[in-house]
Amino acid sequence: MTPEILPTITQPSDMEKLSLPQLERLAVEIRDVLCNLIACRSAHFASNLGVVELCIALHTTFDFRRDRLIWDTGHQIYPHKLLTGRYGQFHTMRTKGGLMGYPNPAESEFDLFMTGHAGASVSTALGLASGDDLLRPDENRFSVAVIGDGAFPSGVVFEALNNARRQSDKMLVILNDNRMSICPRVGGMADYLDRLRMNPMYTGFKDEIAKILGRVPLFGDPTERFLVQLKEAAKAGLSGGMMFEDMGFRYVGPIDGHNIGLLRKYLRMAQRGEGPVLLHVVTEKGHGFKPAEDDPVLFHAPPQFEKRDERKVVLKKSTSRAFTHVAAEAIESQMRTNPNVTVLTAAMCQGNKLEKVRDAFPERFFDTGICEAHTVAFAAGQAKVGLRPVVDIYSTFLQRAYDHIFQEVALQNLPVTFMLDRGGLAGPDGPTHHGVFDLGYLRVFPNMVIMSPGDALELPAMLDFALQHDGPCAIRYPKATAVEIPRKFPAIELGRSEVLRAGTDGCLISYGPLANRCLEVANRLQNEGLDVAVINARFLKPFDTETILQTIRDCNFVVTVEEAALAGGFGSALLEAAADAGIDTSRIRRLGIPDFYVEHGERDELLADLSMDVEGILRTCREIAGNQVIHT
Amino acid sequence: MTPEILPTITQPSDMEKLSLPQLERLAVEIRDVLCNLIACRSAHFASNLGVVELCIALHTTFDFRRDRLIWDTGHQIYPHKLLTGRYGQFHTMRTKGGLMGYPNPAESEFDLFMTGHAGASVSTALGLASGDDLLRPDENRFSVAVIGDGAFPSGVVFEALNNARRQSDKMLVILNDNRMSICPRVGGMADYLDRLRMNPMYTGFKDEIAKILGRVPLFGDPTERFLVQLKEAAKAGLSGGMMFEDMGFRYVGPIDGHNIGLLRKYLRMAQRGEGPVLLHVVTEKGHGFKPAEDDPVLFHAPPQFEKRDERKVVLKKSTSRAFTHVAAEAIESQMRTNPNVTVLTAAMCQGNKLEKVRDAFPERFFDTGICEAHTVAFAAGQAKVGLRPVVDIYSTFLQRAYDHIFQEVALQNLPVTFMLDRGGLAGPDGPTHHGVFDLGYLRVFPNMVIMSPGDALELPAMLDFALQHDGPCAIRYPKATAVEIPRKFPAIELGRSEVLRAGTDGCLISYGPLANRCLEVANRLQNEGLDVAVINARFLKPFDTETILQTIRDCNFVVTVEEAALAGGFGSALLEAAADAGIDTSRIRRLGIPDFYVEHGERDELLADLSMDVEGILRTCREIAGNQVIHT
Repeated sequence: MTPEILPTITQPSDMEKLSLPQLERLAVEIRDVLCNLIACRSAHFASNLGVVELCIALHTTFDFRRDRLIWDTGHQIYPHKLLTGRYGQFHTMRTKGGLMGYPNPAESEFDLFMTGHAGASVSTALGLASGDDLLRPDENRFSVAVIGDGAFPSGVVFEALNNARRQSDKMLVILNDNRMSICPRVGGMADYLDRLRMNPMYTGFKDEIAKILGRVPLFGDPTERFLVQLKEAAKAGLSGGMMFEDMGFRYVGPIDGHNIGLLRKYLRMAQRGEGPVLLHVVTEKGHGFKPAEDDPVLFHAPPQFEKRDERKVVLKKSTSRAFTHVAAEAIESQMRTNPNVTVLTAAMCQGNKLEKVRDAFPERFFDTGICEAHTVAFAAGQAKVGLRPVVDIYSTFLQRAYDHIFQEVALQNLPVTFMLDRGGLAGPDGPTHHGVFDLGYLRVFPNMVIMSPGDALELPAMLDFALQHDGPCAIRYPKATAVEIPRKFPAIELGRSEVLRAGTDGCLISYGPLANRCLEVANRLQNEGLDVAVINARFLKPFDTETILQTIRDCNFVVTVEEAALAGGFGSALLEAAADAGIDTSRIRRLGIPDFYVEHGERDELLADLSMDVEGILRTCREIAGNQVIHT
Repeated sequence: MTPEILPTITQPSDMEKLSLPQLERLAVEIRDVLCNLIACRSAHFASNLGVVELCIALHTTFDFRRDRLIWDTGHQIYPHKLLTGRYGQFHTMRTKGGLMGYPNPAESEFDLFMTGHAGASVSTALGLASGDDLLRPDENRFSVAVIGDGAFPSGVVFEALNNARRQSDKMLVILNDNRMSICPRVGGMADYLDRLRMNPMYTGFKDEIAKILGRVPLFGDPTERFLVQLKEAAKAGLSGGMMFEDMGFRYVGPIDGHNIGLLRKYLRMAQRGEGPVLLHVVTEKGHGFKPAEDDPVLFHAPPQFEKRDERKVVLKKSTSRAFTHVAAEAIESQMRTNPNVTVLTAAMCQGNKLEKVRDAFPERFFDTGICEAHTVAFAAGQAKVGLRPVVDIYSTFLQRAYDHIFQEVALQNLPVTFMLDRGGLAGPDGPTHHGVFDLGYLRVFPNMVIMSPGDALELPAMLDFALQHDGPCAIRYPKATAVEIPRKFPAIELGRSEVLRAGTDGCLISYGPLANRCLEVANRLQNEGLDVAVINARFLKPFDTETILQTIRDCNFVVTVEEAALAGGFGSALLEAAADAGIDTSRIRRLGIPDFYVEHGERDELLADLSMDVEGILRTCREIAGNQVIHT
């Protein structure tokens, strides 16, 4: 299909002239463009298919050059990008220098916040509304947050809802209810939304009301029975979003989120009414593309595929094995042998490849939904009474639980093991997802043991070590192919690094799985007559003062390599240890993430830009070796 | 009054033999002991008076050597300590080496978690229950979390409630509703709890039910009207905690929290029933002590007082002025001159002395309740549309908003100013409250500007600078008397330190208001023939490479002084800058908080232990100056 209407939309106001059937046609065209893009590039998919009509309805009801629109989590931003002047660049999506797969204020005035972590949209939209109310009260600008039911149970959403009352009338929260987080959602709120969906307004079963009315006992019945049945009636869906009304919102819905006309009607109603309003919209993740409708989990961010016809695709098989797979297998193996091991994640079951663990050990597997803070505090409770919880969360999302890592885990010295997946550059997801701050943010806490495997072979051994250790441990590894350095490696010992290669001229110290690149650099330098040692540091904390400081004393130069922020990271810990020991650190160079937000792109492209490819590390070594003044 | 029963209670089981009147007498004795302690020592007070009966009821219904009890936030722990064998040590409360003012597992098997930050109790209790269910399913142990209505709107509580369903039957959450956070609570949940309190079960107005029944229209009315009125009925209190029922809890209450007999009845009911149960208990903050009942905000943690009689006290006036006062005045001054400045706090209005600001600028003052995450994201929204929000939160509590500092503020480079009060050792509050990790946790984020004033005079100038700066700024200052270094100080310039004293032999670099101690040390060393410079660093980020590195090059030794964790802190940033410039760092010594959790005690006592009193700094200088090998 060649799109005809979509190319004519250079800005949302170009849709004003379109009839409802034309808008519906536009929706079909958008879906087709999405399918064609996603077939050849791994990107977020099913969630984007789900919000096409909602996006059209929003941009044809509000004027978001003046009104404010926040897309929570942000991976459902594609239709919005297509309708706000970025159709022509759409093929560059998620490539280095191209469009970002999330909202990006640098791309468009229609993108207000770069979002990627879930749940803050209601707070930021409230802030926008509050600012407009104070600064330009006569302009009646409206703030709209679109948030999925997956993000909705995040604590910060509740905090925002709780603070919305009496804050601003010009506030609309759209709950995009597709019954999914990345994985099927969980918890009391999910059940509640399911009950709301039984509401006659959505089901159309008007006689449902009569039925429930008939169940309410009338005069003469005991009060208690009345109360019970009143509750039941509300539970059955008649409540009309009482929970939200109780919090101070006007609740409207649920309504069909694929009906543009209906959506516009209710959006206009919200615009006119007194807010804050919560509009409950029901959409289907993957809507309009049969394979994605049938398996929205797989099609959340599917591998590339070949489209045979409208109803059938053939997924391209990936042959590479990632650190994530190795971690999931290591967890599964531990769970088989140790009945005290539990595993907890926050809607990252699929992302962390935990499906097998979940299915094999359902009673010891806990997916809390997007609730990282609760997850960590919950794990602390489990650890306190004798379990050995493994918290398997992306490095960047663990930031959401920061205070609980502190108070509930590290301060109590409880044996919780954190598996920090995607520790390092997250590639095409970009700055919201790069997990580069973890070393700095974890290192400040006493009691924390922080490890990173030098290669995939060490990862299971580190997990085994962590589960024996009597205190909190973190293991971080990147979103990358599981590299292996063939060798018989020494057992993991607390605070002990591994010498991968001896050498007397200089030393490369790798924290994490860039160790193989360091070995290659050492081999290349050998050819240039430089005999360089390579250390696989393994531990950031406790720091291996003994081995590493001895090496520094003996070498003419040292280069540290870490896929993490240089501020406060591994290299910084090395400088601290060296300075404390009175060792000259002027011969140390630190490679890592400098003090800026790294854009999106393939991990290897980004690492090369930061001199962390083999050539870059080599260049750094040559520079410092050349400049070297031998310390006397 | 001499307590007679209390001294006989060496463990909770000693209460088994007591009659209800004796337990009520015990409550009176506990209150008297509390009054006597608090009169002569600043400590948490009103919240402790409020839970005396609840504490007695809990310990005479459950056996917390096997059942599990978590006191959320923890400052209401005093009656619990008195009833679990710590009456004899009670006079040591909050003194160095004495009892901690929060639960402390090192003190007693009855204290499970060291709590001080609010809201995690439901999660940890769920974790305890989950662990017991998996490890010892036949023992039917019960987990109980006691949480105040002030902590209740914290997002993590909602996350936990949302995850409680189908998790454990042996789970009881007691909502201790005293209508207060530290300040009066705010938000939709507060209103909701007020409505619940209208419940006939609590008010006793049985005919209320009949009235509301009469308002529900019967046959023949339009469905819509029925729905509206059904909601109204629930809003009026008939709902019986539907919001919690919707989340999967059995809701019971509200009940009178000062009636031991009633409390025990409902606790036993919860014990027998199928959980999870939420028991809504209404208490009075300050109960039983008239002055505290009348002003629970003041008596949350009052200054020392003289008790004239049962009804009247004379508070001892404090003559010292703290950094907190200086900060509040600076904020007020900015708000007077700049209409775009807003101030936000998270239930720290009293703690941060913002009452005057709140009363003078109610429309630009936002107290969100204990919702730090929301506060920061909300501020980001305000900043995005042109306001200049000041987020005034204790350093340690800002950890709760860590991910929003990252995504909503630093990543977007928005001009939000963070005032980190209690940055440093928080004194008698101890490890949960020491704000010592902020330098490390903030420094990792690009765009962040991080300042600390060298004395109180600089603080207003720094705030002024921050409010002109086009990006996020943090200003951290300690819980300490507002020291002043009399001088005409140079204007605050981005990334520029202040040379307080020139010198050629060595250099003291102070980050924050220990600068005056450094000056005193330099004067003392002058007498010993050492000419030592003193730098007031002002900025951690951007780091003043120019001034500071030049000084290091010229000096024989450098000592850095910071009231923060050494891991990743100011000294660490200095080492990074020096190593990057190829400067020898072996002559640098860093004073700060080492890698352990510092106990409670007076700030000056704790600083002395860490060599950060004048003598300690002096000793460090002498050591390194004596060892000094001049670098050639």
